[in-house]
Amino acid sequence: MGWMTNEDGLDKCAANYVPLTPLSHLKRAAHVFADVTAVIYGAHRVTYAQYHARCSQLASALSGAGIEAGQVVASLLPNIPAQAEAHFGVPACGAVLNTINTRLDVATVRYILNHGEARVLLVDTQFIDLAEAACADLDGPAPLLIEVPDAGFAATGRHPTYEDFIAQGDPAFVWHMPSDEWESLALNYTSGTTGRPKGVVYHHRGAYLMTMGTVVSWRMVTRPVFMQIVPLFHCNGWNHTWMMPLLGGTLVCCRDITAAAIYDAIADEGVTHFGGAPIVLNMMVNAPEAERRTFNHQVEVFTAGAPPAPATLSKIEALGFNVTQVYGLTETYGHVTECLWDPAWDNAQGAERAAIKARQGVAMPMMEDITVMDSQMSQVPLDGATQGEIMIRGNSVMKGYFKNPAATREVFAGGYFHSGDLAVQHPNGHMQIADRAKDIIISGGENISSIEVEGVLMGHPDVNLAAVVAQPDDKWGEVPCAFIELKPGATSDEASMIAFARQTLAGFKTPKRVIFQELPKTSTGKVQKFELRAEAAKS
Amino acid sequence: MGWMTNEDGLDKCAANYVPLTPLSHLKRAAHVFADVTAVIYGAHRVTYAQYHARCSQLASALSGAGIEAGQVVASLLPNIPAQAEAHFGVPACGAVLNTINTRLDVATVRYILNHGEARVLLVDTQFIDLAEAACADLDGPAPLLIEVPDAGFAATGRHPTYEDFIAQGDPAFVWHMPSDEWESLALNYTSGTTGRPKGVVYHHRGAYLMTMGTVVSWRMVTRPVFMQIVPLFHCNGWNHTWMMPLLGGTLVCCRDITAAAIYDAIADEGVTHFGGAPIVLNMMVNAPEAERRTFNHQVEVFTAGAPPAPATLSKIEALGFNVTQVYGLTETYGHVTECLWDPAWDNAQGAERAAIKARQGVAMPMMEDITVMDSQMSQVPLDGATQGEIMIRGNSVMKGYFKNPAATREVFAGGYFHSGDLAVQHPNGHMQIADRAKDIIISGGENISSIEVEGVLMGHPDVNLAAVVAQPDDKWGEVPCAFIELKPGATSDEASMIAFARQTLAGFKTPKRVIFQELPKTSTGKVQKFELRAEAAKS
Repeated sequence: MGWMTNEDGLDKCAANYVPLTPLSHLKRAAHVFADVTAVIYGAHRVTYAQYHARCSQLASALSGAGIEAGQVVASLLPNIPAQAEAHFGVPACGAVLNTINTRLDVATVRYILNHGEARVLLVDTQFIDLAEAACADLDGPAPLLIEVPDAGFAATGRHPTYEDFIAQGDPAFVWHMPSDEWESLALNYTSGTTGRPKGVVYHHRGAYLMTMGTVVSWRMVTRPVFMQIVPLFHCNGWNHTWMMPLLGGTLVCCRDITAAAIYDAIADEGVTHFGGAPIVLNMMVNAPEAERRTFNHQVEVFTAGAPPAPATLSKIEALGFNVTQVYGLTETYGHVTECLWDPAWDNAQGAERAAIKARQGVAMPMMEDITVMDSQMSQVPLDGATQGEIMIRGNSVMKGYFKNPAATREVFAGGYFHSGDLAVQHPNGHMQIADRAKDIIISGGENISSIEVEGVLMGHPDVNLAAVVAQPDDKWGEVPCAFIELKPGATSDEASMIAFARQTLAGFKTPKRVIFQELPKTSTGKVQKFELRAEAAKS
Repeated sequence: MGWMTNEDGLDKCAANYVPLTPLSHLKRAAHVFADVTAVIYGAHRVTYAQYHARCSQLASALSGAGIEAGQVVASLLPNIPAQAEAHFGVPACGAVLNTINTRLDVATVRYILNHGEARVLLVDTQFIDLAEAACADLDGPAPLLIEVPDAGFAATGRHPTYEDFIAQGDPAFVWHMPSDEWESLALNYTSGTTGRPKGVVYHHRGAYLMTMGTVVSWRMVTRPVFMQIVPLFHCNGWNHTWMMPLLGGTLVCCRDITAAAIYDAIADEGVTHFGGAPIVLNMMVNAPEAERRTFNHQVEVFTAGAPPAPATLSKIEALGFNVTQVYGLTETYGHVTECLWDPAWDNAQGAERAAIKARQGVAMPMMEDITVMDSQMSQVPLDGATQGEIMIRGNSVMKGYFKNPAATREVFAGGYFHSGDLAVQHPNGHMQIADRAKDIIISGGENISSIEVEGVLMGHPDVNLAAVVAQPDDKWGEVPCAFIELKPGATSDEASMIAFARQTLAGFKTPKRVIFQELPKTSTGKVQKFELRAEAAKS
């Protein structure tokens, strides 16, 4: 340890040590950005002074309702102001925020409420039936339901409304600030495509550092206008509500994701940045002329989940968007790698440009080490070919899985978080995902990356979206089976699609079967491959 | 404390907890910005890969010379690459960096070497006599002198040279990373205008957070080109060498501060940002036409120490510079407040603009609370009139004074660092320094801000620089005495200068005496008022 010869009086004290927490950002913004617009949602426009006061009222009301530090407050909300306020108001009373995915079924929501032991549940009226059903048969006491009527849904009258609830709170409530930055801030359940969802616990330190590092990666300067498209119940929207007050930025809430809503927000509110799944990019590109708006600034777009297809990329960049791919998981607070751009690539166009932008890139600034390792946890060669697993070390990694120390130990083995994603690493260190470990197709002993096959199919002019999964095969073990969503009005058939793929792909990688249908997606636009695998296995 | 009902397995581990240190920035940059130019100094140009290798060699050589974690390595260097490398290479072997002001006298350097117990001293050949004299009569063993010949100074041959020394080091040396972010990183002695200099100890955590917050305040995006004008022996140059690798930025070293050197660096290297005392701004404005260069971008300039005079401000902004005032002390790693701009002020010009930019502003993003308090440690009214002391709480506050727990306790009393600076706070929360507590002039029971009187005198077209101090007076106790440095070729006299001041100032604030002379300055351009006070008292 690097202590000096004499450390008398050099200890931590209140003057020189403050536990890191994103709550500090809003406390500061309430003063230094008091009159700046903090949140926009239709006619709802609040300044930072007002936003801080409303969050304080929420914290005060929760405290008045008996909520104590360390207890869980859950939400079933779209990206509306109440959900943003919960990100500050809930921890400001010392509680832990558990944003629940609104697309889940009753049984899963019940599982999460049971497991997380939520004491309060903030629910949009649209999801009140789901909430009531999930709460009807809990192991413990049911949480207090607070109803948020919005978007024309009339309040049921069966529960206190959000506005009535926070009206009881004191706008001058003194916030609970963590006395240890390792205290829990949020609880996020994984999507649970295999087995039960796991409860990922975030700490204040990790979220604070996430906000500081994201500023750099997202090239944000003071007063950005950020549109919240990524659901806040997904990694807390990549921590953006926590970051905005650091910059005096404006958060534009977005309940329903449509191309028209996004174009309008860019043109009318001056949105400078947003994040979204590739499907959002497709939507922007394929929007009818009537929904498009013109604007004079470049909009920075960050996408994750799958690389943008070359055709999408060239079209969307021509419209005034700069696309950067990022990568992360629920366990890492959202994005922790970025496809860090090198100005030397500025002139790359078309397929070359798309190939660069398809990479998940390198560690973001707040992360210590993110790299690709083999099964012995040794660095793979930087050859763009050798596959290994993405391994992650840094301060924006979860505390662990709630009530699941065995799973936590397993996923942290060897001092790194094991992402479960297979990737190669290029000579410049940029990582590129080959596949999720469970999505890889093994055919006759050869590994086939479903992502590679999908990328080829996405290049077909009639294809809107493609997903490739393993289909059991007596001879080869597995063969690739493609599910394709065609563009509106387009037609195609299996034989021509297979022929198209074969122009580029080796025979064993070419899909043996093509099924045309709309693809099942999660609320965040991720294709639900487990459903497709089940369907492919049926034949 | 906000712990959850069950925290089993949610402890810190290597995967999710990494002590914060600016060393991490260079480790990352060596990979993600490997080929980007890291440091420029004349013909010396190194990439991040090379910079990292050189710092590793320094760390390795120091380790090979027996330096252990927690020991002190000192330097007597201008802003040359060796000084930048010391900021990483010294802590990378676990040692604590003590940059010593090259303008100090032998006795003070000796005092610092004795007090800090330096084991190694890196010395520019220009200061080798000073170093040898200071080391001649130390209480303990003399440090190992490593000589850095530069700028035409021929090596004395009496000591190993820096290049020979690091050549012994291994470029693949494994860095000592702090196992506790509270470990000491740097030791900076205060200027000691009153009494002995005090040794301010910085920790890794504070410097890391300083770099993250400064990115936001300085509106820096990826790959800035930063010119290091503020001496690195002054608060480690406001921590900018530690910040640059976070952004893949280029550090332009500047040994001798001249207008020509700065203009050339802007025009030839594309410098985007620099910091400097107001005297640097004056130099830019008053530079002869032959030394000026044109450039097409706006240069962000951060200034501290004294507010820029209105005339300087309007002239320098017209040349393509945007000036922001910041404020801080050695004890706070450099700047911790910023005159955070509000776009509503964009149209303010002349005196109105200067009045806004003369404010020290508000807390930077990494600080928790910086405000003005009365002697009872209560918040002063935000009326722009009531004076109090600037009080500072946050993670970029020193650990304390080395071997001086009594002084540490005193300056941290009540949970805030007591800055010793008197200020008012405007209705928008912006702080404005009235004076250093010791610089205030008390005349007939009235407080006179020397800064206010100086501001008026600086508005005179013939005045280059003005400093006002207290002169003992039998009747009034103290009266203001002005020292004025005229512009080249200008002439003036006491009576006309007093008449000029009287047009704006109340009678009791108007200087009773004016002395024309060059003002004594510290190496950072701060006027040494203690000398002027002595001179004013002589008469």
